[in-house]
Amino acid sequence: MQVAVMGYGTVGSGVVEVITTNHESIVKRSTQNELEIKYILDLRDFPGDINESKMVKDFNVILNDDEVKVVVETMGGLHPAFEFVSACLKTGKSVVTSNKELVASKGYELLTLARENNVNFLFEASVGGGIPIIRPISQCLAANEIDEIAGILNGTTNFILTMMIEKNMSFEDALKLAQDNGYAEKDPTADIEGHDACRKICILASLCFGKHVYPDCVHTEGITKITLSDVAYISSFGGVIKLLGRAKRISDDKIFAVVSPAIVMNGSQLASVNDVFNAILVRGNATGDVVFYGKGAGKLPTASAVVADVIDCARNADKRKPFGWGDSVENYVADYDTDVNPLYIRAKTEDKESAVKAIEGAVGSIQLLTNDSAPQNEIAFVTKSDEEKKLVAALKNIAEIEIESLIRITDY
Amino acid sequence: MQVAVMGYGTVGSGVVEVITTNHESIVKRSTQNELEIKYILDLRDFPGDINESKMVKDFNVILNDDEVKVVVETMGGLHPAFEFVSACLKTGKSVVTSNKELVASKGYELLTLARENNVNFLFEASVGGGIPIIRPISQCLAANEIDEIAGILNGTTNFILTMMIEKNMSFEDALKLAQDNGYAEKDPTADIEGHDACRKICILASLCFGKHVYPDCVHTEGITKITLSDVAYISSFGGVIKLLGRAKRISDDKIFAVVSPAIVMNGSQLASVNDVFNAILVRGNATGDVVFYGKGAGKLPTASAVVADVIDCARNADKRKPFGWGDSVENYVADYDTDVNPLYIRAKTEDKESAVKAIEGAVGSIQLLTNDSAPQNEIAFVTKSDEEKKLVAALKNIAEIEIESLIRITDY
Repeated sequence: MQVAVMGYGTVGSGVVEVITTNHESIVKRSTQNELEIKYILDLRDFPGDINESKMVKDFNVILNDDEVKVVVETMGGLHPAFEFVSACLKTGKSVVTSNKELVASKGYELLTLARENNVNFLFEASVGGGIPIIRPISQCLAANEIDEIAGILNGTTNFILTMMIEKNMSFEDALKLAQDNGYAEKDPTADIEGHDACRKICILASLCFGKHVYPDCVHTEGITKITLSDVAYISSFGGVIKLLGRAKRISDDKIFAVVSPAIVMNGSQLASVNDVFNAILVRGNATGDVVFYGKGAGKLPTASAVVADVIDCARNADKRKPFGWGDSVENYVADYDTDVNPLYIRAKTEDKESAVKAIEGAVGSIQLLTNDSAPQNEIAFVTKSDEEKKLVAALKNIAEIEIESLIRITDY
Repeated sequence: MQVAVMGYGTVGSGVVEVITTNHESIVKRSTQNELEIKYILDLRDFPGDINESKMVKDFNVILNDDEVKVVVETMGGLHPAFEFVSACLKTGKSVVTSNKELVASKGYELLTLARENNVNFLFEASVGGGIPIIRPISQCLAANEIDEIAGILNGTTNFILTMMIEKNMSFEDALKLAQDNGYAEKDPTADIEGHDACRKICILASLCFGKHVYPDCVHTEGITKITLSDVAYISSFGGVIKLLGRAKRISDDKIFAVVSPAIVMNGSQLASVNDVFNAILVRGNATGDVVFYGKGAGKLPTASAVVADVIDCARNADKRKPFGWGDSVENYVADYDTDVNPLYIRAKTEDKESAVKAIEGAVGSIQLLTNDSAPQNEIAFVTKSDEEKKLVAALKNIAEIEIESLIRITDY
């Protein structure tokens, strides 16, 4: 079987490396006589590269070669990835991608094209890097109704939060360290504002609940407003702050989905997921909580997930895997503030005593938190569990406080 | 598609319950028009049971019914499970089992029968209960060479150790509590002596490294000799004791495999796996460490894993999944004490100062551990990393100490 790789960047060159290094066992597992990379598409030159003879710059070379049965898309970005992938599927080639933006934005469309052309469109590597998650959800957990899914889906922000929590490093210093270590890009917006995590929870929620979830329907908050003061208060409460993507089923036509900093209590499996690691918790009605943990990014982990999909395409060369989800429906994602949680609040106040009275009058009893280095005019507390919209409306009405931080408390 | 369930105990009745509760989505995922339980085999009577009309006592009813394409074996034990499963495979029925004893002892034989008869023999539920692990190893991690696998594979012993570590409860009291909670059986031998974990690591090692590993080739120690004193020393060292099943590749014809209490340092994903939870760490040459976590036992989690396999059989009704391992080879499992680790040692001694001198003379520098409630005539320490056989031989030669406890320190 002949394979083409589009995009010879970090992941693409990793795919070539994994197929070369583990060639013998990969061929065996693919149930093919051979599994070979015929072309590598990239506009750049790689003089002296060991794979130079396979490099092509013209996509049509791949598209028009009937020997190529599987195409790997590791270019990233929406265009021309979308056009190239569509064209491949239409000509009867299976496609494997690591491109979360592509799957989150165009997944339904491309899955439909794959079905119409009886080929596979697989994307294990688009979420969780080397952690197997897409396939376990679609297969291993097939006997479950999945009620909820939540994950630490972005390694960069998890590294930053870990440095803030464990080393008392400011957000800015931790971001700088992440950039110095190569964990964060020069423009870190997609990571720190939660967009990357949002794409991933969209893919997971689409798969778990059966209808496409578009990123612009999901309320997304990043971690830029988290302070060391929040970290300290929440530590005294027995928890840690993580950037979580979360989704849960409300009904067949309604889900809840949000990306935001959230509090995970110590002892939870998600609380001990540190540095650049990712973890995804799946709550099934039969299995209970199952957690998948590992490196969420990196050349070889991500590449190995891509190659596992290539092997799957090879094994199913004559047959499409039943896999995917349906179109979205209107108002499928519920308003983010209709969820029911306790909230952590940090606020400015000139008079703590009367503030507490006013707060308890508005939202019932609260748990006050302390923090050694807290300024005099600050108060932090945890509310009882209630609808967020209701809690926030009541709290915003209180003249005695000015809210500076709001973080949701989870039960994972 | 018609299914038969053999054994209407905890797991078997759970299988029937999961198929009933999630029937609609299971049929859809199975890509069949229907998926129905036709027979339930059990020698006992279940008067008034909702499924009474499906109960049969004669195995031949199932064997001779050509409509039954998939048979679920949840009887447990080796006989007659082995004979029944063999007969089903020979008549062209796929078999799904949760029976770890059967797979660990007869896996190669049954996989061969399945291949010869072009049917599937699947056993996701035999390890890790509801945690997807067999399928991720065989599929999602297909692009990796797996170098090593280690797991907390037995919920009962993990509960007991958790009580000892967190509540300072003695082994005996913790075992009693586990029995009172229904986590441990009246005769807890299979759990506390490590036999259950041994069967599971055999299945995992067979799958990861490609050749059958038989339980009697794997050195197995239980947790009955662990004391609260060990727990305290190891806590002061920054670790916890877990009962681990471990296996790693030495060469294509040699692996290392052992079941024993082992020290996991705090911060490791395995250290925070508490109570009856299980976790399995897979170390791949491309993915790095991936951890799968969840409930390792229980009616519905285990049943959901069985049903996922049933769905897989239904999806592949016309086609065998390439899956399994080869025959064992002689001396495939290396001697357990040839592994290289640091060791934790607790020993009796009448003269600590001269004991330390003698120990350091024999094995090089050591790290002494302290424990508030330690008796005067006791010493505990951690050695440098070296071959276990060599360390033990040297330590046993020291007249000044009498070794009471030896626990291996892992790097997970």
